Amino acid sequence: MRSLVLIGHGSHLNPDSARAVYHYAELLRGQGFFDEVLEGYWKEEPSLRQVLRTARYTDVTVIPMFISEGYFTETVIPREMGLGHQGPVPPEGVVRQIGGVTVRYTLPYGVHPSMSEVIMQRALEACPDASPEDTALLIIGHGTTRNPNSSRVVYHNADRIRASGRFREVAALFLDEDPRVNTWPELLSSRRVVMIPFFTAEGWHTQETIPEDLGLTGAVTEFGERTVYYGLPVGTHPQIADVIVQLAQDALAQSPMPGEDNPDHEEAWAAFMTRADAGLRLGEATITPHAGLYEVRPTLDEGREDLELLATPEGLRDRVRLSDSGEYRPVHTLRNLPRGWRAVFDAADLRRAIGYLYPAVVEEGYLASQRALQATPWASTARRQTGIYTKVQQATPEEVAATSRRVCGGCLKTRLWAGDNLYRTFFDGVPGGIPCAEACTFLVSEIRETVAARQQQERELQTA
Amino acid sequence: MRSLVLIGHGSHLNPDSARAVYHYAELLRGQGFFDEVLEGYWKEEPSLRQVLRTARYTDVTVIPMFISEGYFTETVIPREMGLGHQGPVPPEGVVRQIGGVTVRYTLPYGVHPSMSEVIMQRALEACPDASPEDTALLIIGHGTTRNPNSSRVVYHNADRIRASGRFREVAALFLDEDPRVNTWPELLSSRRVVMIPFFTAEGWHTQETIPEDLGLTGAVTEFGERTVYYGLPVGTHPQIADVIVQLAQDALAQSPMPGEDNPDHEEAWAAFMTRADAGLRLGEATITPHAGLYEVRPTLDEGREDLELLATPEGLRDRVRLSDSGEYRPVHTLRNLPRGWRAVFDAADLRRAIGYLYPAVVEEGYLASQRALQATPWASTARRQTGIYTKVQQATPEEVAATSRRVCGGCLKTRLWAGDNLYRTFFDGVPGGIPCAEACTFLVSEIRETVAARQQQERELQTA
Ligand code: SF4
Ligand code: SF4
Repeated sequence: MRSLVLIGHGSHLNPDSARAVYHYAELLRGQGFFDEVLEGYWKEEPSLRQVLRTARYTDVTVIPMFISEGYFTETVIPREMGLGHQGPVPPEGVVRQIGGVTVRYTLPYGVHPSMSEVIMQRALEACPDASPEDTALLIIGHGTTRNPNSSRVVYHNADRIRASGRFREVAALFLDEDPRVNTWPELLSSRRVVMIPFFTAEGWHTQETIPEDLGLTGAVTEFGERTVYYGLPVGTHPQIADVIVQLAQDALAQSPMPGEDNPDHEEAWAAFMTRADAGLRLGEATITPHAGLYEVRPTLDEGREDLELLATPEGLRDRVRLSDSGEYRPVHTLRNLPRGWRAVFDAADLRRAIGYLYPAVVEEGYLASQRALQATPWASTARRQTGIYTKVQQATPEEVAATSRRVCGGCLKTRLWAGDNLYRTFFDGVPGGIPCAEACTFLVSEIRETVAARQQQERELQTA
Repeated sequence: MRSLVLIGHGSHLNPDSARAVYHYAELLRGQGFFDEVLEGYWKEEPSLRQVLRTARYTDVTVIPMFISEGYFTETVIPREMGLGHQGPVPPEGVVRQIGGVTVRYTLPYGVHPSMSEVIMQRALEACPDASPEDTALLIIGHGTTRNPNSSRVVYHNADRIRASGRFREVAALFLDEDPRVNTWPELLSSRRVVMIPFFTAEGWHTQETIPEDLGLTGAVTEFGERTVYYGLPVGTHPQIADVIVQLAQDALAQSPMPGEDNPDHEEAWAAFMTRADAGLRLGEATITPHAGLYEVRPTLDEGREDLELLATPEGLRDRVRLSDSGEYRPVHTLRNLPRGWRAVFDAADLRRAIGYLYPAVVEEGYLASQRALQATPWASTARRQTGIYTKVQQATPEEVAATSRRVCGGCLKTRLWAGDNLYRTFFDGVPGGIPCAEACTFLVSEIRETVAARQQQERELQTA
């Protein structure tokens, strides 16, 4: 038995950021190569810190859903997941034994050789009569001075497509590193140029930065004698699904021995199902057994009859994505579960549904009820941060306390990381008894804002 | 049996705004002249629209806790309370029969003749050796061009104190109407001048506007030959309590026949107590009967043992005033009831405690459960507004809907005023089934902000 974990970036602000990962997870579930397909996120839940806890089996494959190697795949993900690895990932991936579980961490999907095929598809969509006579292909990468590996994949694809002879010229240029994208008129001499953004999805860069930097006015822009065709980002091409399936199959081939049920994980869920069979309040929801099925609904809606009926874990996931005020809920334990629905599941679906409703809460709640959940104090969380988040190391204890009061005050969880006591969990009949083992990335990012605002003020005072 | 209702302004922003009214209500409860003492607020709950519903008896005396007559006492309060009266209130008050209840609306406490005594006390505190030889008294009123009656009380007090012969000169000057406060040096000729602000409490006007306008540097300021003594506002003097007791007694004398239990009100509470005797979920709280007493606690804290024990309705009122994030809760049905407490009451205290926890919710919830709660559509609410709130009449339906989604989405109540359906209330087993009969003043004020922001933008576009 094997678990597959797809890792996405996610967002604290954009409720649609995880859509692509959802989509590929569902697709792979349908394919059935793996016995379960899970998701983990940098900025959503389950977090990178929690996601391995949510895996059912002792053989876990982790695929980063990123388009290139770089800061996230080489630094953030392995660090947060506790893989004891930093830096470039070898082609066969990184394999680790963590608490009796074999974890196999692969390269990101974007480095798969078949991405060249996807780029060519995008180019032909943009310019169906592209020809080796007069058409150049320009692949536009993000690039970053932070990590040289992130541009390598763009060059590889350019090389492969150049070798195919399908275009008169093929070049790779970047937004944030040299050679820059605005050098294309000198670099290329073809009359027609097809430009394909090597990005995961449409966004600020593909819709604002690139068109503005290059003066593109739409899908086709004339520059005197020359014509530029601007294509869609590669990451949203339907064929990406095949790349990911391919990657999953390659990873499977790396896993000679199937895993088994992870006993710790099964113990937690067995205990949970025992509670569910008796009827259980969990956070703001109530679970009621009914003729072999389980009904989940907001506790506030108990006894209410005019409720929307949901029948799939995904339906529940999407229904609770926004609060009734329309706010996005990147932290699922914020006390703003929308009302007006009930969901009915069999035992297998209940498990997945609760994983969507309150990610990693069953696993961590059970550990806490056994006094076995390790808390990570704020100081360690702060010390571990890199990139823009190192700033939180400069937060005063007062700033951490005040920001946490504001943010965590609206969250169901009890902050073990701040020394708060949780004597009884929902396993022991306290609906709101849910542990928080470590400051979540949402709080970390709010604390960063607090420090940044204070430093901004200090600078203004100095110059005043 | 008689009910007394104290009316305060209250605030959407300042959690301490209602403290003074709390204080006087408790004092009058202790005195026992009235069989119950209730509170109602313009900007808090129970609102002026709801407060008569919360009265237990058919004889209700309403005292506005304002320092002068004016816009609030003559326009806002009678209109919102549905007294069918506008304009000056005669000395004996306004008496109305409303649905079998006798409602007696009095003048504000500040117009009571004994306020002159309080002003003199304040003057002697500020300048103990004030003398008819060389000391002038200046009473500083707010004044407003909106309502000439608001300054009358200041002149009356000046006249009464002048007649007492205790000061060489006595004058009344105003912040917002003529004669203005900065004309005092010409108006008065005495060597020493005691200035007493005729205000309810310390605040922006007494601590900022007045000292700044007059160049006062503290309790004593020298202006060449002359000395100014700046005293404390009259409204916070301990003797105000006596004024209010006096006012309540005068009102009582106006009430020859005691009232009885209001049958509608009693029916609602009897139904509620029947539910409480069986155990009841109400909003985010759970009420559990226990050996003749009742325990109230947040539903999320069910089964939790490390809870702060509260034993008085006032203790509960103060404990739920802020959310766990530290936000003030002017609307008590916002879904941010703080956790970490349990309260134990006898039946009589439970009634008052629930009145503090969820003001007017039992009365309105019962009516809704009987399909007898009259909803007021937004259009009527908007049309009724005066003063700065007339602006909401310019809100588009989209602005009302969007602002209400944001605000009401975080509130337990179901908006009958917006046409939302409430099929079952907490009387029928739905904890979150609480009606909202009419847009609350908090929402009205948020909608005003929405319109003001849009109009500001439009102006900027025009001048751009
Ligand atoms: S850090 Fe605060 S907001 Fe984040 S999960 Fe923990 S308690 Fe909730
Ligand atoms: S208007 Fe909205 S926020 Fe105000 S009480 Fe009604 S539902 Fe709640």
